[in-house]
Amino acid sequence: MAESDTLIDAESAAARIFRGAVRIQHVPTDNRGLAYGDGLFETMRGAGGVLPWWERHWQRLQYGAERLQFPLPPEAPARAEAEQLLAGGDGVVKLLLTRGSGGRGYMPPPHAEPVWILSRHPLPPPATALVTVRWCRTRLSLQPALAGIKHCNRLEQVLARAEVGSGELDGDGDGDGDGDSDGAASEGLMRSTDGDVVCATAANVFVLNGDRWSTPLIDRCGVEGTMRAWLLEQVAVEQRRVSVEQVESANAVVLVNAVRGILQVGRLGDRSWAPHPAVSALCRTLASAHPAFTLPPSGPGPMELS
Amino acid sequence: MAESDTLIDAESAAARIFRGAVRIQHVPTDNRGLAYGDGLFETMRGAGGVLPWWERHWQRLQYGAERLQFPLPPEAPARAEAEQLLAGGDGVVKLLLTRGSGGRGYMPPPHAEPVWILSRHPLPPPATALVTVRWCRTRLSLQPALAGIKHCNRLEQVLARAEVGSGELDGDGDGDGDGDSDGAASEGLMRSTDGDVVCATAANVFVLNGDRWSTPLIDRCGVEGTMRAWLLEQVAVEQRRVSVEQVESANAVVLVNAVRGILQVGRLGDRSWAPHPAVSALCRTLASAHPAFTLPPSGPGPMELS
Repeated sequence: MAESDTLIDAESAAARIFRGAVRIQHVPTDNRGLAYGDGLFETMRGAGGVLPWWERHWQRLQYGAERLQFPLPPEAPARAEAEQLLAGGDGVVKLLLTRGSGGRGYMPPPHAEPVWILSRHPLPPPATALVTVRWCRTRLSLQPALAGIKHCNRLEQVLARAEVGSGELDGDGDGDGDGDSDGAASEGLMRSTDGDVVCATAANVFVLNGDRWSTPLIDRCGVEGTMRAWLLEQVAVEQRRVSVEQVESANAVVLVNAVRGILQVGRLGDRSWAPHPAVSALCRTLASAHPAFTLPPSGPGPMELS
Repeated sequence: MAESDTLIDAESAAARIFRGAVRIQHVPTDNRGLAYGDGLFETMRGAGGVLPWWERHWQRLQYGAERLQFPLPPEAPARAEAEQLLAGGDGVVKLLLTRGSGGRGYMPPPHAEPVWILSRHPLPPPATALVTVRWCRTRLSLQPALAGIKHCNRLEQVLARAEVGSGELDGDGDGDGDGDSDGAASEGLMRSTDGDVVCATAANVFVLNGDRWSTPLIDRCGVEGTMRAWLLEQVAVEQRRVSVEQVESANAVVLVNAVRGILQVGRLGDRSWAPHPAVSALCRTLASAHPAFTLPPSGPGPMELS
């Protein structure tokens, strides 16, 4: 076969690879992240050359590394490298941490040095409207040993997100896939194999029933998002099992993550919602706490998920 | 940080990387296998420079790629490259197939070119004895959307295999972790979160109750191994849910995979088994069908899993 060396595209030009504390040029082919998804990641929103929620992301990474039993790289140089990537500007920085190299076989090597990749990505486009979501057919399996952490075994999310992209969705939430399919959804809501609502493919979910916020428990599947954790500290929110009916009958539903912030759902199948003052209040609280989520001049309001 | 370029170790020297039909030098940092375990793999035993079960492995890869909705590379050059790696000798060839590059986010790119890696590994050491196994505490979650295929989301197996290595096992199978722990186990048996027995961390399981073979159904979790598929064609085997009690009370238990062949279990907690003639018969059938599994001069018998 012919050989090609033209791999330095825009993506890899904005990426740096390390093994332990040492910068390296390429990911070795025996990397366990590549072989088994044996790794963790964090996606951080940066503003003005800094990552305001670094500590929060690093704590979750630390918790994940303890659960998967592998070491972290040194924190101070990791943060310095991550913020250098921003070059004084705004953007998204992804930190992908793998267990490093290993032989063939699942047995984790006892003294692997972690291999980690930092990459810079553009901010999502500016927010303008409520987000339309759908019920995904792909379910989240129940695995308490992996619940909560942001590990790299994400095929369930990949399959679910592909449904949103292709319009193969179940808009009416009854699981038979015959629901409304107008192609306008930009995120998918995911249920566990038990039927309870867990999250969106790339966001946590908060639901306002009456005047009480609740959010799904992340004890059997799903990721404990950093924005979710921050909101739990700001507002009275009950963590519980949430049903499809509780979502569809809610006064407001929001999706939250560390890159997009707080997004109100405007439509789910036949149900639609107008902007809700309780969501605007959440957005104001966030804007005052985090420089990256400063509200646009038109005032507080939900953002579009593109 | 300091830079290093010394990545060409023994592992990567025996590996070749391709994008589509073109050989490339490095795995790009935006590879989705690395990010999400968004890939598939095959581990093939080669003998005398050929891969006798290539078709079987390729068929499973094809099935997996259909389920995950990404294209395969061209088969003929892939096989030629894989067999070239054997250089006329014996060995294990691993084919790792990823969806290729993608931006940040779970959405699979519509036209990604698959990136795949071939690597050569030594054969396992010669077989001499029965294998000792333990019950793993880590369970397999129920996910019909991913059951059967050999995808790269393998953190459950990694955690389970780490239990075997560290001796943190549950030898008596009651799930409380207080079982026998003499450190001699070389594989771990895995149950689903429902409690039924599914497989070993890197092998399928066959159980002889009375004079009838059975093997766990692979409809909710686990991998449909190529050796398992071959055995189902040779011998009358019932596919069913298998309980812990049915394993522990069996007349014989065997582990099978495409690299090791057929391995009889000699010990599981307090239970021990002598070599069983029905297993020797299976080994003879395999030896006559597959040149890589020719029996040693001492005659048919179970091999040791190291």
